[in-house]
Amino acid sequence: SRYEYVKNFERESILLPETYIVIRVDGRGFHKFSSKYDFEKPNDLCALEVMNSAALKLMETIPNIIMAYGDSDEYSFLLQRRCDLFERREFKLISTFASTITAYYQYYWSQSFPEKPLQPDRLPTFDARTVCYPTKELVKDYFRWRQVDCHINNLYNTTFWSLVKSGLTTQEAENRLIGTLSSDKHEILFKEFGINYNNEPEIYKKGTIFVRELDFESDVNIDLSKRQAQRLQKKLKKSEIKKLHCDIIKDEFWDCRPWLFS
Amino acid sequence: SRYEYVKNFERESILLPETYIVIRVDGRGFHKFSSKYDFEKPNDLCALEVMNSAALKLMETIPNIIMAYGDSDEYSFLLQRRCDLFERREFKLISTFASTITAYYQYYWSQSFPEKPLQPDRLPTFDARTVCYPTKELVKDYFRWRQVDCHINNLYNTTFWSLVKSGLTTQEAENRLIGTLSSDKHEILFKEFGINYNNEPEIYKKGTIFVRELDFESDVNIDLSKRQAQRLQKKLKKSEIKKLHCDIIKDEFWDCRPWLFS
Amino acid sequence: SRYEYVKNFERESILLPETYIVIRVDGRGFHKFSSKYDFEKPNDLCALEVMNSAALKLMETIPNIIMAYGDSDEYSFLLQRRCDLFERREFKLISTFASTITAYYQYYWSQSFPEKPLQPDRLPTFDARTVCYPTKELVKDYFRWRQVDCHINNLYNTTFWSLVKSGLTTQEAENRLIGTLSSDKHEILFKEFGINYNNEPEIYKKGTIFVRELDFESDVNIDLSKRQAQRLQKKLKKSEIKKLHCDIIKDEFWDCRPWLFS
Amino acid sequence: SRYEYVKNFERESILLPETYIVIRVDGRGFHKFSSKYDFEKPNDLCALEVMNSAALKLMETIPNIIMAYGDSDEYSFLLQRRCDLFERREFKLISTFASTITAYYQYYWSQSFPEKPLQPDRLPTFDARTVCYPTKELVKDYFRWRQVDCHINNLYNTTFWSLVKSGLTTQEAENRLIGTLSSDKHEILFKEFGINYNNEPEIYKKGTIFVRELDFESDVNIDLSKRQAQRLQKKLKKSEIKKLHCDIIKDEFWDCRPWLFS
Ligand SMILES: Nc1nc2c(ncn2[C@H]2C[C@H](O)[C@@H](COP(=O)(O)OP(=O)(O)OP(=O)(O)O)O2)c(=O)[nH]1
Ligand SMILES: Nc1nc2c(ncn2[C@H]2C[C@H](O)[C@@H](COP(=O)(O)OP(=O)(O)OP(=O)(O)O)O2)c(=O)[nH]1
Ligand SMILES: Nc1nc2c(ncn2[C@H]2C[C@H](O)[C@@H](COP(=O)(O)OP(=O)(O)OP(=O)(O)O)O2)c(=O)[nH]1
Ligand SMILES: Nc1nc2c(ncn2[C@H]2C[C@H](O)[C@@H](COP(=O)(O)OP(=O)(O)OP(=O)(O)O)O2)c(=O)[nH]1
Ligand SMILES: O=P(O)(O)OP(=O)(O)OP(=O)(O)O
Ligand SMILES: O=P(O)(O)OP(=O)(O)OP(=O)(O)O
Ligand SMILES: O=P(O)(O)OP(=O)(O)OP(=O)(O)O
Ligand SMILES: O=P(O)(O)OP(=O)(O)OP(=O)(O)O
Ligand SMILES: [Mg+2]
Ligand SMILES: [Mg+2]
Ligand SMILES: [Mg+2]
Ligand SMILES: [Mg+2]
Ligand SMILES: [Mg+2]
Ligand SMILES: [Mg+2]
Ligand SMILES: [Mg+2]
Ligand SMILES: [Mg+2]
Ligand SMILES: [Mg+2]
Ligand SMILES: [Mg+2]
Ligand SMILES: [Mg+2]
Ligand SMILES: [Mg+2]
Repeated sequence: SRYEYVKNFERESILLPETYIVIRVDGRGFHKFSSKYDFEKPNDLCALEVMNSAALKLMETIPNIIMAYGDSDEYSFLLQRRCDLFERREFKLISTFASTITAYYQYYWSQSFPEKPLQPDRLPTFDARTVCYPTKELVKDYFRWRQVDCHINNLYNTTFWSLVKSGLTTQEAENRLIGTLSSDKHEILFKEFGINYNNEPEIYKKGTIFVRELDFESDVNIDLSKRQAQRLQKKLKKSEIKKLHCDIIKDEFWDCRPWLFS
Repeated sequence: SRYEYVKNFERESILLPETYIVIRVDGRGFHKFSSKYDFEKPNDLCALEVMNSAALKLMETIPNIIMAYGDSDEYSFLLQRRCDLFERREFKLISTFASTITAYYQYYWSQSFPEKPLQPDRLPTFDARTVCYPTKELVKDYFRWRQVDCHINNLYNTTFWSLVKSGLTTQEAENRLIGTLSSDKHEILFKEFGINYNNEPEIYKKGTIFVRELDFESDVNIDLSKRQAQRLQKKLKKSEIKKLHCDIIKDEFWDCRPWLFS
Repeated sequence: SRYEYVKNFERESILLPETYIVIRVDGRGFHKFSSKYDFEKPNDLCALEVMNSAALKLMETIPNIIMAYGDSDEYSFLLQRRCDLFERREFKLISTFASTITAYYQYYWSQSFPEKPLQPDRLPTFDARTVCYPTKELVKDYFRWRQVDCHINNLYNTTFWSLVKSGLTTQEAENRLIGTLSSDKHEILFKEFGINYNNEPEIYKKGTIFVRELDFESDVNIDLSKRQAQRLQKKLKKSEIKKLHCDIIKDEFWDCRPWLFS
Repeated sequence: SRYEYVKNFERESILLPETYIVIRVDGRGFHKFSSKYDFEKPNDLCALEVMNSAALKLMETIPNIIMAYGDSDEYSFLLQRRCDLFERREFKLISTFASTITAYYQYYWSQSFPEKPLQPDRLPTFDARTVCYPTKELVKDYFRWRQVDCHINNLYNTTFWSLVKSGLTTQEAENRLIGTLSSDKHEILFKEFGINYNNEPEIYKKGTIFVRELDFESDVNIDLSKRQAQRLQKKLKKSEIKKLHCDIIKDEFWDCRPWLFS
């Protein structure tokens, strides 16, 4: 029609080829969401598993996702370096990931919490963003950043809610923790509540990793021939997605999985 | 942490101030979605109303949306020219709209179609994009574009499915319509099926408009004083959102609503 | 060749259609440049005219420029709203304007200052940037901003160098002026140096405007028919470029020249 | 001033950190420029050396440029991966490179061609663009692309102008070369003009490389400690810039210079 010219005002943003794309989604206003639907404090295992199921399903749907990491109300998805999903169009990626995680979260929520039906004035929603990293070292540091963040928040929250459950007001608990170091919190937990933080569940301390897993072959080379690369892609597609709660800060996790960066 | 530097790789895109922002969402793969959940052809009124409810709810939640237009699996939302929602950050806008429309669609679907529970392998999802228009004439042409598109598709689909219901295969119906003009389709409908297209339901022919409605005051000026502008904003917030299926191609709709561009 | 794929890494940025594009160039390190080539203080008329000649020549070369404003080491060029120069590609616009102003400046310098040959370790260079404005009010405010800036700087510099020429060190002069208002500077100039600032040359106080000039016809409408618009474009191409040092803050300048925004 | 708000309409584009930035400048309309100033055909050594001098001077001025490659009217500059020049702001980079190469070209032209003074209606100007490459392999392929292009053009031009000088019209020469392979052109040159293309000057066949040169130490490692990296940077700053006309398609050039990617 004579009005079609208005489509020329649309802009496109193509993410730089051959960089690793990370897409992070984060629950919008989950502070309020978690209190409205009575999440357990500091961690609601069931709610975390809703998030994990949603992320896993998304990963199963999109084979270009080679690994994912999540904790709290957020998840980060790593696309392969050569990934051409939506021709790397940023707006399609962002909107699709935001929409899909939302759809799965609501779906799994209704499966897991039939007794807590979602109400229209507070449905779970997510923002999304893309980030490009040119090297694998940066990708590793990205995921380390998220896991360190998980650790810091969880140590804080665990101590905070222990104090509150023992009778302090939230304000008092907050004041008590101002300026404390990591070691101080460990000590409070141990001395005052008999909690050895190291024995806390790994899923809370480390978050959740989903990773497409291959048998480790020391020779999974980075510089593959074209044919080897295609074979690897095929293997990856059929590979099992493993769920882990392990350390991803040390090198070991990465050194054992060269295919993440192939 | 020492890993926080990776956040510096995030980019921001701020939409040009003082332009009208339109955000369009569109169902992903609704061809398959509509056939999986047995939509009526060519139009499933109930499904359209799920979409309408989702869009209305989104508009109620975000007061910056001054009007919306939708048909089929898509909706366009118009933000006010001075709107500062998310500081006009494009990625927040895109991801939030994609996520929120998804959440509401699924919610209203489960209310409207208890007999058609959504299945995890085909949940409704949406992409989203922003477009900026510097003038109100362009904004009008944008919405005209969408309504003309609605009209063209609906006339085609109505004729196509009439032919198919009368016994043609889909391939035969398609062939029959190749090269036909608008007037030819009107004639087929009338002569062969006794359908006067003009009497078809307005919602199918024109789509759905949601608009924040004020009493028409011929003097709603474009150049308001600061205080008048604030008063107008207040009025708009309290105003009723009206649902219409009227023509938005002619000037009348726009001339009666100067506040859309204030 | 097999290496051509690397061209896919190039990005394009297209400026939003139907917005007014302003391109501003600014001399790089002209503090040092002006002292190296012994500019008169606070204003070197000859050097300013080199800048003006360069800007005028650029404007003559590119008919899409409808007006320009400059002072000190900077110039701003206004493109017409519908302008399609380089298909509105930002990088071409930026690099071409930066390059062309550089070429003309050096050329006119060598004509105007044969006794001050440019030396390779300090050639005049310029940065450039584009800004898009959706409305003509914003465009006016843009140029007002630059002229107010010119005024503020010139009043300061005139007072500063009067003080210095009267014997103060630059540090003393700076201290003397800290916290002074516009009126204080007027007074210093008048009382201590017998200078009535209002009688200073207009080119210093107001900067320089180049504008494509038409006979004023009160009826130069904004909403022209297509044919009228083409006729106007033709007229503009043949029109004379006028050089002014007048006020562009008040409405008069703009009200008399509706064609700037046609 | 109250008008300063218009500055908020400026946009910034920051190039992705830790990618290799290449900036390519290219003469605008050098087809006409070269004929106006009577360049020798197909190659004007003196004009090429003006270009080379301008590029070298630019490289000397900006220590972040680790190598440059040029032929015909273009030059490509490679910035170091960690380079923070202008905080990686794209518009500053583009405009500064376009402006600086223009200034130097004009300057060296007037030194080299006192008998061909530049005329204001055809001054040499340049466009500029940035491209980011995430890996060193891509950077190598980028420069290979330019050198292959140089070779293809030069072989064509050499044959074309030989034909023209022998009496063909330009149209006839063009027709003669349509569909010819590289080997055909070699043969034409040899059989018809006694020219062994391989003996043509290297500067025409290979273009010009400027590279910051270190003594080759096989152990210039990619993964340097912070202190080693700083020492390397210092060395590079003091290092000599070498001018070469060698092959950069084969690996040898790159393998000998690991510091290009450190
Ligand atoms: N009680 C409880 N709260 C949780 C759990 N997981 C997440 N949350 C809450 C704690 C935080 O307040 C919130 C996540 O923090 P964010 O920084 O993402 O903030 P929020 O989502 O409120 O705002 P945002 O829209 O992301 O800026 O979600 C949980 O398992 N239990
Ligand atoms: N039967 C039926 N189909 C509908 C209705 N509303 C929308 N659809 C279908 C018809 C179209 O195939 C589809 C919308 O067209 P689109 O161009 O958006 O394509 P689709 O969503 O399949 O792909 P996309 O992911 O948007 O590229 O949705 C309805 O009320 N009834
Ligand atoms: N003496 C003298 N100086 C002038 C004249 N016109 C401009 N300048 C100098 C005064 C300022 O120091 C400088 C312009 O200020 P800018 O803010 O553009 O700074 P500058 O160019 O030094 O740095 P930049 O690279 O633009 O950030 O040029 C003149 O006519 N006479
Ligand atoms: N005769 C002669 N011509 C040269 C020499 N170096 C470059 N040229 C001319 C040949 C080409 O026509 C032109 C470079 O080609 P380009 O593709 O850059 O085209 P041009 O600069 O004309 O247009 P552009 O503004 O870059 O799109 O410069 C030379 O040494 N001798
Ligand atoms: O932790 P982030 O990156 O989400 O930081 P934020 O402060 O929440 O910022 P944003 O508004 O971009 O979500
Ligand atoms: O109709 P549109 O704009 O959605 O056009 P499209 O062909 O679907 O393109 P896109 O892949 O951008 O949705
Ligand atoms: O006055 P401007 O806009 O040039 O401001 P600046 O501080 O010089 O910034 P820039 O580094 O963008 O020239
Ligand atoms: O060879 P390039 O990249 O300059 O290609 P072009 O066709 O000249 O395009 P441009 O208009 O971007 O210079
Ligand atoms: Mg956030
Ligand atoms: Mg959140
Ligand atoms: Mg969060
Ligand atoms: Mg689409
Ligand atoms: Mg769709
Ligand atoms: Mg659609
Ligand atoms: Mg500046
Ligand atoms: Mg300057
Ligand atoms: Mg300046
Ligand atoms: Mg080009
Ligand atoms: Mg060229
Ligand atoms: Mg060229």
